[in-house]
Amino acid sequence: MSLIVAKFGGTSVSDIERIKNAASKIAREVESGHKVVVVVSAMSGVTNKLVEYCSDISPIYDVREYDIVVSSGEQITAGLMAMALQKCGIVARSWLGWQIPIVTDGTHGKARIENIDTDELHNRLNDGEVAVIPGFQGITVQGRVATLGRGGSDTSAVAIAAALKADRCDIYTDVSGVYTADPRIVPAAKKIHKISYEEMLELASLGSKVLQTRSVEMAAKNGVPVQVLSSFDDEVGSARKGTLVTNEVNIMEQELVSGIAHSRDETKITVVGVEDVPGIAARIFEPLAKAAVNVDMIVQNISLDGLTDMTFTVPRNEADLATKTLKENVDLAYQDIVVNDNVSKISVVGIGMKSHAGVANTMFRVLADKSINIQVISTSEIKISVLIEEDYTELAVRSLHVAYGLDA
Amino acid sequence: MSLIVAKFGGTSVSDIERIKNAASKIAREVESGHKVVVVVSAMSGVTNKLVEYCSDISPIYDVREYDIVVSSGEQITAGLMAMALQKCGIVARSWLGWQIPIVTDGTHGKARIENIDTDELHNRLNDGEVAVIPGFQGITVQGRVATLGRGGSDTSAVAIAAALKADRCDIYTDVSGVYTADPRIVPAAKKIHKISYEEMLELASLGSKVLQTRSVEMAAKNGVPVQVLSSFDDEVGSARKGTLVTNEVNIMEQELVSGIAHSRDETKITVVGVEDVPGIAARIFEPLAKAAVNVDMIVQNISLDGLTDMTFTVPRNEADLATKTLKENVDLAYQDIVVNDNVSKISVVGIGMKSHAGVANTMFRVLADKSINIQVISTSEIKISVLIEEDYTELAVRSLHVAYGLDA
Repeated sequence: MSLIVAKFGGTSVSDIERIKNAASKIAREVESGHKVVVVVSAMSGVTNKLVEYCSDISPIYDVREYDIVVSSGEQITAGLMAMALQKCGIVARSWLGWQIPIVTDGTHGKARIENIDTDELHNRLNDGEVAVIPGFQGITVQGRVATLGRGGSDTSAVAIAAALKADRCDIYTDVSGVYTADPRIVPAAKKIHKISYEEMLELASLGSKVLQTRSVEMAAKNGVPVQVLSSFDDEVGSARKGTLVTNEVNIMEQELVSGIAHSRDETKITVVGVEDVPGIAARIFEPLAKAAVNVDMIVQNISLDGLTDMTFTVPRNEADLATKTLKENVDLAYQDIVVNDNVSKISVVGIGMKSHAGVANTMFRVLADKSINIQVISTSEIKISVLIEEDYTELAVRSLHVAYGLDA
Repeated sequence: MSLIVAKFGGTSVSDIERIKNAASKIAREVESGHKVVVVVSAMSGVTNKLVEYCSDISPIYDVREYDIVVSSGEQITAGLMAMALQKCGIVARSWLGWQIPIVTDGTHGKARIENIDTDELHNRLNDGEVAVIPGFQGITVQGRVATLGRGGSDTSAVAIAAALKADRCDIYTDVSGVYTADPRIVPAAKKIHKISYEEMLELASLGSKVLQTRSVEMAAKNGVPVQVLSSFDDEVGSARKGTLVTNEVNIMEQELVSGIAHSRDETKITVVGVEDVPGIAARIFEPLAKAAVNVDMIVQNISLDGLTDMTFTVPRNEADLATKTLKENVDLAYQDIVVNDNVSKISVVGIGMKSHAGVANTMFRVLADKSINIQVISTSEIKISVLIEEDYTELAVRSLHVAYGLDA
């Protein structure tokens, strides 16, 4: 008998039929003897609608009131899910953030969970009751509602699993797992059955939008095995083939490369003709950091005639803020700021890289063979990323997928 | 400086523009130096949608979970209203039922408010802060959400006004007050500027659907003056001409008759050919009372040959339940049960009747002059009601409106 936290995303609870379908999956877990906590997102579209209401009142709003408005989406699903479980013959009740309570650090709109009181939940689970908890919400120590930021329901689920010392956290979503590449680009892409937290973090932040990054970090920190599953498949138990995200040591047959990720959400910015003196990087990146711009890849050209170029990437929706910040705040002479959206970031990810040389070499050779120009390179222990012209995205991903033997 | 509780119904907060419009009315009250508590309904249509979700899950649902689902509608409006007030430069915050708390008797789905903690609200009001409270919701002593039943936001507003000892409770709605008759039937109908609680109760329960009956009862019990206002008029202060519902003693110039109400929501049921022995009324009405059928007007025919007919009215949506209950449970011989929907109840209401004879006489004469047959009569101290054929509704209301001098 295991204790399982099961989380259903917005598309998995988008209407009453899907809520009933999700409930029937939980009913089978309960009938198998497991204790289950269900975490739910808002029905798809609801949160966007509520956020729109807030923006329509005022572009700048009180985020404490925003939290009251948007947290209601998950509240609705929680009540409906409890009803649907009861309809399946399961004893179930909803628990709002303030009823448990789930206490956060109080940063409204993007709060971090600090403590979850589990005594009563454990009592109810031991009595065979299923707890349904709205994701995305907690309270502050002042007793006000605080939300965790977009996608926060994954984080809620993992945090609750960690607090309850659950055996597993199942994330039901609209994809059946994590793939070696985007199947829309690489038809031969295969589902990854086991992956380490570190690899998942690299894949998630690079565009395989299956799990929210914060939730993976939290799972890694607390050692919570996370299983990504499709809520649209009807298999249960061992017949289900999702992706299990777990500790490196639990992964027996480690592939050299686990997957090829790509992201079109980057913008390349080049500060041209900067005087090449000590401290220029600090003078460029400090104002950006203060403006909360997330700078990713950075490369500085070799100096010519005492002038150099500084190139870096930022998320595309932060490009305007980055440019404005540079123009207004950089205490530095430069000739021009060139912004280029026509780029794509391609990443090769794999824990096996740690102990194998030549992974980067293979990447560079494959791209060169296809005449794809590499604009920027960045590396970590388990990842190599390159920035290329956007038009070459599919060709690059497919070629690398073959080169690392992932089609096999 | 007064303390005012202002409640906005669903049509008054049906979209963002109307929420902003409502907020601007409150801003003017605050600028006039008043302390204000705002009570809000769900945006129109939202509660119906949420109720539909619950019914779609299961026709028989856990009303504790229903309360979680449907109470979110008012929660959304409360957050948005607080934002809209802030946008007007007003210091405002939302207070959910559990945050105040508003403690109820725990009857989920139709809870009654038992206690409202006002200390913190008074502190905030004294600091010039506006409190925005979602109507329709409270909590149980077990800390679960409980709703007050449909239309409960009026009751919330009056209960909060009573607890805070407010000077007035303003109910903003989509009509500009209470009229001497339905203006769609009687174009000469006039707005009533002051009306007693008792008269309002008779008018409300008889089809002038402006205020929820429970809220008027509560206002009467606690002596809270209630002002019905249109949220679509733009006047403020004394220039506003709504209807003030207050104590009889506050009404100086008492009209003999305040208004003519009508209701098409009645069904007439006749149990034909009942043996006329003692106790037949009890044997007919006890089973109906146990089945929670609301019997209204009752008349028993003169006995002929030891047989009699018993006629009564019930709300139209309870007619099937009433007939079924009679057929299955009445321990009494009868020849037939005749059900008639083709009826209308016309009521003449006025506190002045208490001290004036002849009001009933006028009614019977006017209806006779128009050849309108009276099927059933019932009277109270301040009301005379008759049941007539539905087709004569408009003619009866218009003729009575003239006869009592209300056109003047």
